[in-house]
Amino acid sequence: MSTSGILIASNVTSTKNPWQLNTLEYNVIGIFHIVTGLIVFFMQTGFAFLEAGSVRSKNTTNILIKNVVDMLIGAISYWAVGYAFAFGDGNTFIGTKYFLLINLPGPGYSFWWCNYVYAATAASIVSGAVAERIKFTSYLVYSAVITSFIYPIASHWAWDPHGWLMIGVPGASYQDFSGSSLIHGVGGMCALIGALFLGPRLGRFDKNGNPKNLPGHTVPFVALGGFILAFGLITFNVSSYFRVNGSLDAPKIALIGINSILAGSGGAIVALFTKRLHPKLSNHWSLLTCINGLITGIASVCASCNSIYPWAALLIGAIAGLTFMVWSWAILKFRIDDPLDAISVHLNAGIWGMIAQSLFNFKTGLFYRHMDKTSWLQFGWNMLGLLAILTWTSATSGLMFLILKKTGYLRVSEEIEIKGLDVPIHGEPAYPRISYGSGWGIESDVEMDTSVLMLLPSDNEDNEARVVKSQN
Amino acid sequence: MSTSGILIASNVTSTKNPWQLNTLEYNVIGIFHIVTGLIVFFMQTGFAFLEAGSVRSKNTTNILIKNVVDMLIGAISYWAVGYAFAFGDGNTFIGTKYFLLINLPGPGYSFWWCNYVYAATAASIVSGAVAERIKFTSYLVYSAVITSFIYPIASHWAWDPHGWLMIGVPGASYQDFSGSSLIHGVGGMCALIGALFLGPRLGRFDKNGNPKNLPGHTVPFVALGGFILAFGLITFNVSSYFRVNGSLDAPKIALIGINSILAGSGGAIVALFTKRLHPKLSNHWSLLTCINGLITGIASVCASCNSIYPWAALLIGAIAGLTFMVWSWAILKFRIDDPLDAISVHLNAGIWGMIAQSLFNFKTGLFYRHMDKTSWLQFGWNMLGLLAILTWTSATSGLMFLILKKTGYLRVSEEIEIKGLDVPIHGEPAYPRISYGSGWGIESDVEMDTSVLMLLPSDNEDNEARVVKSQN
Amino acid sequence: MSTSGILIASNVTSTKNPWQLNTLEYNVIGIFHIVTGLIVFFMQTGFAFLEAGSVRSKNTTNILIKNVVDMLIGAISYWAVGYAFAFGDGNTFIGTKYFLLINLPGPGYSFWWCNYVYAATAASIVSGAVAERIKFTSYLVYSAVITSFIYPIASHWAWDPHGWLMIGVPGASYQDFSGSSLIHGVGGMCALIGALFLGPRLGRFDKNGNPKNLPGHTVPFVALGGFILAFGLITFNVSSYFRVNGSLDAPKIALIGINSILAGSGGAIVALFTKRLHPKLSNHWSLLTCINGLITGIASVCASCNSIYPWAALLIGAIAGLTFMVWSWAILKFRIDDPLDAISVHLNAGIWGMIAQSLFNFKTGLFYRHMDKTSWLQFGWNMLGLLAILTWTSATSGLMFLILKKTGYLRVSEEIEIKGLDVPIHGEPAYPRISYGSGWGIESDVEMDTSVLMLLPSDNEDNEARVVKSQN
Repeated sequence: MSTSGILIASNVTSTKNPWQLNTLEYNVIGIFHIVTGLIVFFMQTGFAFLEAGSVRSKNTTNILIKNVVDMLIGAISYWAVGYAFAFGDGNTFIGTKYFLLINLPGPGYSFWWCNYVYAATAASIVSGAVAERIKFTSYLVYSAVITSFIYPIASHWAWDPHGWLMIGVPGASYQDFSGSSLIHGVGGMCALIGALFLGPRLGRFDKNGNPKNLPGHTVPFVALGGFILAFGLITFNVSSYFRVNGSLDAPKIALIGINSILAGSGGAIVALFTKRLHPKLSNHWSLLTCINGLITGIASVCASCNSIYPWAALLIGAIAGLTFMVWSWAILKFRIDDPLDAISVHLNAGIWGMIAQSLFNFKTGLFYRHMDKTSWLQFGWNMLGLLAILTWTSATSGLMFLILKKTGYLRVSEEIEIKGLDVPIHGEPAYPRISYGSGWGIESDVEMDTSVLMLLPSDNEDNEARVVKSQN
Repeated sequence: MSTSGILIASNVTSTKNPWQLNTLEYNVIGIFHIVTGLIVFFMQTGFAFLEAGSVRSKNTTNILIKNVVDMLIGAISYWAVGYAFAFGDGNTFIGTKYFLLINLPGPGYSFWWCNYVYAATAASIVSGAVAERIKFTSYLVYSAVITSFIYPIASHWAWDPHGWLMIGVPGASYQDFSGSSLIHGVGGMCALIGALFLGPRLGRFDKNGNPKNLPGHTVPFVALGGFILAFGLITFNVSSYFRVNGSLDAPKIALIGINSILAGSGGAIVALFTKRLHPKLSNHWSLLTCINGLITGIASVCASCNSIYPWAALLIGAIAGLTFMVWSWAILKFRIDDPLDAISVHLNAGIWGMIAQSLFNFKTGLFYRHMDKTSWLQFGWNMLGLLAILTWTSATSGLMFLILKKTGYLRVSEEIEIKGLDVPIHGEPAYPRISYGSGWGIESDVEMDTSVLMLLPSDNEDNEARVVKSQN
Repeated sequence: MSTSGILIASNVTSTKNPWQLNTLEYNVIGIFHIVTGLIVFFMQTGFAFLEAGSVRSKNTTNILIKNVVDMLIGAISYWAVGYAFAFGDGNTFIGTKYFLLINLPGPGYSFWWCNYVYAATAASIVSGAVAERIKFTSYLVYSAVITSFIYPIASHWAWDPHGWLMIGVPGASYQDFSGSSLIHGVGGMCALIGALFLGPRLGRFDKNGNPKNLPGHTVPFVALGGFILAFGLITFNVSSYFRVNGSLDAPKIALIGINSILAGSGGAIVALFTKRLHPKLSNHWSLLTCINGLITGIASVCASCNSIYPWAALLIGAIAGLTFMVWSWAILKFRIDDPLDAISVHLNAGIWGMIAQSLFNFKTGLFYRHMDKTSWLQFGWNMLGLLAILTWTSATSGLMFLILKKTGYLRVSEEIEIKGLDVPIHGEPAYPRISYGSGWGIESDVEMDTSVLMLLPSDNEDNEARVVKSQN
């Protein structure tokens, strides 16, 4: 950055209105998308830590590297083909221009940034459900497929003017403002399919099919993830707004934020009290349940946060908190192992979010206009679209996981699953014991034995012998 | 988000100046408030981790859930009544419109968002002082009361045009730009009252009243909290600016940032060197002291950061660092147990911040105009307002804590305090030993015994027996 | 913040175009710099945690306090003299105005904020290379020198209109958009000089000069740092843009973001696969390598991210990931101990970034115009400038480290290095054992013995005896 830039900025500005003003408006909205998009990018950290805290210490490095890599693979694949499939004009099914962003018009650039982070979010959601047992290479493949193909095509349908769901029928087009179904629904459905193909972790269910808890190793990491996700998801909703030239634009953007935090609050508090007060549950004030309720609440108003009253947001979130508890219970009943409850959070929020949009939208919601045919048409189109999106997602991700399973690339060996993935696959235990000494303030620990066996690989033959040959 | 939005944004813009320009100005300031307000929202993470690192491991989940829940309860109560009491016109004492945000005019929405996060901040400050011994239900009540009633009314007095402190007297009105007294003072005073009613933690003072250190369990979490709080508090001050149509607006916003970091630097470095060099202190370079000095410094220029020179900011912060050391010493002398030093940071910053505003404000500061009657009047009004705010806060929060104490809802039992709150109340130990295995890279740990006792509740009868029945 | 401000904002706006519009443009760019600058400020947290996770537990508090203090010392010294040396007009070598920001014109304020965080970044880079053995006082001195003198003068040369590198020769001026050479190069070169003067940590190389791994103590902290750095570095590049009055400004800002994430992706993935597939390496999917590749990739497009195509960004990053592996290997061959690989990341990125700018810049890049004399001239001037900057940095920092070494202030004693710096120097073990109790959920731990030896100093005579008298 140089001062000369600043000088240019103050001197060069000419007075040729109105183009200058239109240009500024256009730049303001672009900057708004870039800055909020950057914050949404940071949300990847939230997923990473929510998940790192929720797995056992032996799989910590594994879950972290997955979350790092999916945002990077996502960037490359969404740049190469994903954006083109999603927003490259084309037909009602798929876009066909702007591969590698070639010939992309100006406004597309900040639009790309926001949509890339949305794609990465959809991919990240899955990592929780398949944690502690999926192979790393399998994860690389799946990240690329979801960000380059599965999610882009679903978003083409609903968010591109050429998409069949957006075109809709006279009187109705698909209404999912910031992705209850398109991001949380798609991610949650992939998570369900992945968890089904993988099967449960060793020891998750006993012989009679009763679940045993395999608690995560660090509650503070879960909380860190939860805080960052709340910050990121609210910003996510806010970032989906796209105008600044109307006198109600700033209030509408703020309303999105208000609705998001109220929905999150409703979800968290209902889940918290349900867990505490339900006679069959544990009678505890559970932080983990509270955080899941918070995320479910925010995710469930993605579809509607720009077009509902605050009281409706609170109500939608509260119901989402309740449905989360039910989903979470049902998933276990079906003996599906989802270490992060990602299905109960995101798929649930995707489905309920689209229903809620149809009910509480302040223009067409059935709650206000249950006698109005158009409102029923809108409801029907939303449900059809939701069904189409979830069917598309489960078919494509099912095929992908099937191929990975048949070729033996899906799941790690039992030996590695028991040892944990960090040492055999990644060579990096999360907390190498050799590195803990007088950090504990204990006198007897402080004399470091420099001849002791090092735990990280690459320079230590002895260590290599102890490490299962990387198979993944 | 759909591309059609982008298309609309570039096509629809008309040329009907000057309304279009005024609209854009208005939207720019709204967006500015929303984006900075979102970052201030993230500051909750900072409080959570500053506190989590500063308590013992057995109370980690407890302190984290408190920090999650207060921002959620705060959202609901500030939406329902808090904003109405604060900014709903009304009389000089209290606002009376906009309950549930009904009939709220456009500009109020982004204003609500910023003020909600300020309210949540005031509430969060208290959680440090009452840590490791307050009941969870008691905390729920107090969060709701402070964000719906105590803080809103104080802010009505000083920040609403109808409030008596803002109306002031001819020649003076209350000057607290971004809340030295209104946020840090109110939060710090509640913290003091709460700590007094609760009494010290078991083992904090010996029979002779000499303090024993009960160090927090993870210094890195304290540092994480400190970094996020510095980021959040500077943004907090910046977010309080409200104009973009003057040629000095951007420089003034930047000046607020500059003054904030310089004050923080002054506070941190003076506290750091005092601890290191004072002959009666421990001769160490203390990170924890440094972080507290940093927060105190920034908080003490909240009142004045828009109207002082940078050198004055550095000086105000430096003095704040010194007064922090004195307060911290005095609080212990009075045998008050404040696990986070929240009182010495925030109440101190609130009081000193208002004095400093009166001294160094570049328009009316006594340092520049100590012969000027108006400056003395301004000083007097600031002190009167400060006294009124602190009296209001201590009276109302005192009543609240008194009721909680008399009804037995205030403090956990000795048994639970000794065991720690995480397992009995929340059922979630922060670091369940069962979940640590080969994450440590130790061969002997890697064979997971799936029959081993699980530590999380709900699916394990044996575990339930070990856990004190939740009483809170 | 008061409502009256909002009222003013909507009422006062007049219609005197075009000044009003120019003012708004100017304020928008100012706000953009402040908000992105605040996010870049948050990047300090990233450095702190990348480093905290990469050292042994006994030096955790030490590395954290260094990262806190350098941003604070940086603020004071960049305010007092650094900005004046960098951007205070003056001659071709050094600026001479605006000490203490006196008489600074309006646009300078938001410009100061961004440049301060850049200076702090340059200083932070060094802390990794000198970790676990440098004295704290020595670190204070070095932070002040780099932010007040070494970095400001280099940036005056290249980024101030009076600087000799920016003035350049007819047809060429130095092109480093957001600091590949000026920030990463300067920081990385200081890191190299510091590591050379300090020598390796005890036990890093055996008698034959073969390296032994001294792994960091917490992989999740490294990952946290990596995520925050990615967020911060992309924002860093974005924040260097300085115009909003052209119709391509928003797309250009977004392009900077796109190029940054693609370069990071290229670097991370190439480093990841090289480590995994190279026959002489460990055959693991390494998270730490991946994160270093990510940072190297982003840093290497700082110079060019505003003027290259996305495919070039990906390629530049990919090559940076490869050169990182080579540098990392070479540094060890030369028996230089750099605990964070800071040299291989930042100095490497600085050098390669300037070469890449000369090759792929879409106006003058040699890749497109290898027959064009002006392009060769530009390449030559870039290389000359890079050489000058690195020479300046190594000479000045070499002198500084030499003085520190000769006066005995550079390195801690062997005794302290073995014990770790946290307890003797800072009195604050990162994880005091006394504070871990039933957080682990273990019954036998829960009875807290309040008479047990406290580990924190200041109130405990017994403890003091165990602690090496602070020497630093």
